[in-house]
Amino acid sequence: MAEAIRIIGLDPGLRRTGWGVVESQGNALRFVASGTVTSDDREDLAARLCQLHDGIYAIIGQYAPEEAAVEQTFVNANPASTLKLGQARGIAMLVPARAGLRVAEYAPNAVKKSVIGVGHGDKAQIRMMVRVLLPKATFESDDAADALAIAICHAHHRQSAAYRIAALT
Amino acid sequence: MAEAIRIIGLDPGLRRTGWGVVESQGNALRFVASGTVTSDDREDLAARLCQLHDGIYAIIGQYAPEEAAVEQTFVNANPASTLKLGQARGIAMLVPARAGLRVAEYAPNAVKKSVIGVGHGDKAQIRMMVRVLLPKATFESDDAADALAIAICHAHHRQSAAYRIAALT
Repeated sequence: MAEAIRIIGLDPGLRRTGWGVVESQGNALRFVASGTVTSDDREDLAARLCQLHDGIYAIIGQYAPEEAAVEQTFVNANPASTLKLGQARGIAMLVPARAGLRVAEYAPNAVKKSVIGVGHGDKAQIRMMVRVLLPKATFESDDAADALAIAICHAHHRQSAAYRIAALT
Repeated sequence: MAEAIRIIGLDPGLRRTGWGVVESQGNALRFVASGTVTSDDREDLAARLCQLHDGIYAIIGQYAPEEAAVEQTFVNANPASTLKLGQARGIAMLVPARAGLRVAEYAPNAVKKSVIGVGHGDKAQIRMMVRVLLPKATFESDDAADALAIAICHAHHRQSAAYRIAALT
């Protein structure tokens, strides 16, 4: 029987960073937890990045995931928003990496393809399919649902990689 | 006599993050150290962000600055570059903030105005004026010179704020 592995998916944003933890074993997926880390927009940027850092750090401490996946978000027309997103994304990648986790990146259309079967679709579709794939999942926000979708995407892709390696040996 | 304060300026970039430490006392400025933290572009993004983190963390440990200043960089036409810059900038703000330093942000034209007297000018002018303002400065790169310029900008602005408060009381 394949070993169970715990994966955290992260959907970074300066105001709200979604997170979702799943356990993957063979073809089975199990929901562990999900939620949102927020930063206080009355604080200055450095303080907000610390809030994201501390929030993600606490989640990783609590749920002890073994691998992480972050969406490779690209980017609307507004450079100021892109810069903000980049800053949040830097923190979302740094924290698991410093905790010793491998951090995979997936393009948004790869994430969508993993959960809804095609490379495009809206938030409502993602949310619905996350409920189908993880029937026990509870999530209060689109950010948390997106983070679970990213974790599901990694569960699929890390397996195919493992299968590919298995097929070669 | 005014108290001496140590300032670190940071010029963030994913490949190279410049840093410069100065000491400001009244109207006097003294060069302490400068350099560049680099990340290895053969590594994946998460590992590179860890390299920047560890580099900046070590500098702050070594030189014990009390305040930090980072350029509020805006942004060329390429969203992918902006996202990269944002990720590096997130780390450059996080590390001093977590060490308990106040982190100020300055627009590029404010930095230029502080060192060359006007809000525009090229890297060669900045480099030259940093040499004039900090005769003992040694720096091997434009990134380090820019970081010193940001530290100088903060030394000027934090003083005017202090003077303003002093004038009111």
